[in-house]
Amino acid sequence: MKELKDYVKTIPDFPKEGIMFRDITSVIEDPRGFKLAVDGLKALLKGVDFDLVVGSESRGFVFGAPVAYAMGKGFILARKKGKLPRETISESYDLEYGSATLEMHADSIKKGQKIVIIDDLIATGGTTGAVIKMVERLGGKVVKICFVMELAGLEGRKALKGYDVESLIIYEGN
Amino acid sequence: MKELKDYVKTIPDFPKEGIMFRDITSVIEDPRGFKLAVDGLKALLKGVDFDLVVGSESRGFVFGAPVAYAMGKGFILARKKGKLPRETISESYDLEYGSATLEMHADSIKKGQKIVIIDDLIATGGTTGAVIKMVERLGGKVVKICFVMELAGLEGRKALKGYDVESLIIYEGN
Repeated sequence: MKELKDYVKTIPDFPKEGIMFRDITSVIEDPRGFKLAVDGLKALLKGVDFDLVVGSESRGFVFGAPVAYAMGKGFILARKKGKLPRETISESYDLEYGSATLEMHADSIKKGQKIVIIDDLIATGGTTGAVIKMVERLGGKVVKICFVMELAGLEGRKALKGYDVESLIIYEGN
Repeated sequence: MKELKDYVKTIPDFPKEGIMFRDITSVIEDPRGFKLAVDGLKALLKGVDFDLVVGSESRGFVFGAPVAYAMGKGFILARKKGKLPRETISESYDLEYGSATLEMHADSIKKGQKIVIIDDLIATGGTTGAVIKMVERLGGKVVKICFVMELAGLEGRKALKGYDVESLIIYEGN
């Protein structure tokens, strides 16, 4: 029986030379692969007391939304600049390749709400670091951070020190 | 008891003057609103025989992924140009404001597979039209297209003539 990690395809030199791209779409495209991933994230959250899930655009939506729905929670979008219609707050951050700005609605989290952050991948942790900053500026408390895949060689956990971080698949390299 | 449509906030003049923006994020952020929307989409698919769900970046991911997961299907991403790592096909289309190109993995659909397309919104139908073209180029058959919201005044259904289209909320204007 295939395990979750068996559904991940590795694409060498994408999006640029020297990067071993871990292709999560091959997990999502397969009914059993996708179920294993979402069920795995739900299992990481068993017994965790939380109010809302936050996911970042756009692969974070693919995992955060099913977990929020299946666990009866609301889902908060961290989107790229200029995409959210109401008043926003923003944080800029460095990516593994390039840089970007994320925004969240200023009224999307109420003071004291317990927040779970879900994303497909932790690389350097820059994206998640920006999401944490926004959640905390809005008065939310990050109680858990879950990833499908972790590139341990990029040491993203160092950037998320002090938080409860778990990943379903850990790659030792980058 | 609030109905699904009561969770939609309307933002005047976003992203530009004269547009009444129907804000779906206010649905997604609320546990009950999000559940009503995803359960509603699942109900539209009751009895429909299909293999895969296709959603377009990025709000289509927020609804397509939970429906695919909850109904035990794989989820295929139609993404903006340059985001997918394997070999792709692409289609360009006009948006209500601006234009764009979507891509899908060339191997994501097998000939004869029955496809459901899910998105948050149908406006002019341009995005969905591009997704239909790609699905059919790959040999898939579009058996149903479901939206959370429809702006009937923009006549998107005309662009999708001949397909089985249903929406949970229909706004008569634009």
